[in-house]
Amino acid sequence: MTDSTHFPVTERNKVRRLHERGRYDRESVYAILDAAMLCHIAYIIDGQPYCTPTAFWREGDKLYWHGSSASRMLRAQKPGLPVCLTVTHLDSLVLARCGFNHSVDYRSAMCFGQAHIIEDLDEKARALDLMIDRFYPGRNAELRPSTTQELKATMVVGMEIENASGKIRSKGVGDEEEDYALPIYAARFPVTQVIGAAEPCPRMPAGVPVPAGLAGFTPGRRLDEIMSESYRTTYGDN
Amino acid sequence: MTDSTHFPVTERNKVRRLHERGRYDRESVYAILDAAMLCHIAYIIDGQPYCTPTAFWREGDKLYWHGSSASRMLRAQKPGLPVCLTVTHLDSLVLARCGFNHSVDYRSAMCFGQAHIIEDLDEKARALDLMIDRFYPGRNAELRPSTTQELKATMVVGMEIENASGKIRSKGVGDEEEDYALPIYAARFPVTQVIGAAEPCPRMPAGVPVPAGLAGFTPGRRLDEIMSESYRTTYGDN
Repeated sequence: MTDSTHFPVTERNKVRRLHERGRYDRESVYAILDAAMLCHIAYIIDGQPYCTPTAFWREGDKLYWHGSSASRMLRAQKPGLPVCLTVTHLDSLVLARCGFNHSVDYRSAMCFGQAHIIEDLDEKARALDLMIDRFYPGRNAELRPSTTQELKATMVVGMEIENASGKIRSKGVGDEEEDYALPIYAARFPVTQVIGAAEPCPRMPAGVPVPAGLAGFTPGRRLDEIMSESYRTTYGDN
Repeated sequence: MTDSTHFPVTERNKVRRLHERGRYDRESVYAILDAAMLCHIAYIIDGQPYCTPTAFWREGDKLYWHGSSASRMLRAQKPGLPVCLTVTHLDSLVLARCGFNHSVDYRSAMCFGQAHIIEDLDEKARALDLMIDRFYPGRNAELRPSTTQELKATMVVGMEIENASGKIRSKGVGDEEEDYALPIYAARFPVTQVIGAAEPCPRMPAGVPVPAGLAGFTPGRRLDEIMSESYRTTYGDN
């Protein structure tokens, strides 16, 4: 399918293993991406693959991430480098009745494209402001503005998604029919990533209030839910 | 350093950005790896980088992961493919007084080597048994044994770590000295990945007890702590 609601399916992004888990529609892929703060990016330097974790954010079909100008990865990407950006949410441990059926429930998305450095200072500043607001709604307006030096020391990389696929497993325990009667313990252990209580910086002046944009950052809440909510607050449903 | 306690430092694994965060000793790298169930693996097929999440486990300096024999990634790795296996633990969100100092606390490890398929059925069976026990101590002995068909349908990949590096940030808020007095909210939000209460398979016969090896899998406990503990129980301190 190559309509506007789906990413084109090619040899590169086709889900081969357990293809019934595959998703190619933008809505599914976006939901997996927007629930995350971190991704892992695969790229190649001199024939050697690297896998680097980094914070990222999405604007329509464009993904952004950033790093210091000193970063080897970003220097190498300057001319436009093929990358694969992957996001994974672990949702449960699945303990089945045989080794083969042990598994995990998860949501993952792989996005393919060419990474380019954002050279223009205004475009870079705009992207970084949106990054902060994407994670922490409204926060950028509350911060000490970035200096030109800080802006120059930060590299922002952008990538238009050419292909993408999502993969979701959410079925819990799935055993062979003849194994269910065996006296073997089988269970699903849910896994969530949660935030704890804020630890305010001890050097804050007295009386600084908690910003309204952080109202959703309550102890014990799932980070994927917070991130999805922050995304919608800042970007709407794009 | 190239003694037995440290991985050799080369152009490939040298930590460039914020190098004071770098770790090259086996103890630090192992601790990051053994606290995880999932990693992301970067590899190349026809010049295109891919980044795939998968469960993995460690035995000394050797890493293993697995997948179906149908997996594109593992087929491509048959002749021995250069890969980078990365593990990341997100430990906190860091909200500073300017955009530039926003950060996260984390522990990550990158491991480089050549991936080879384990062809020998006995070696493969042993590796898979150890995988189950590494995550769930003693569990393998409680399971319905694997069939030859299941064993053949599973591909196990092994990789000797040639280089590795760890990277740790754990300092929380770090602002410019002149910014601390500003009336801006700054805080660290701890992030943890935790398990919930077991959801036993509804098709279990009555009276199947919870195995002793899962005693540490208690609701609300951190997955990284459980995984580290499981690792030590199964492998000792190797």
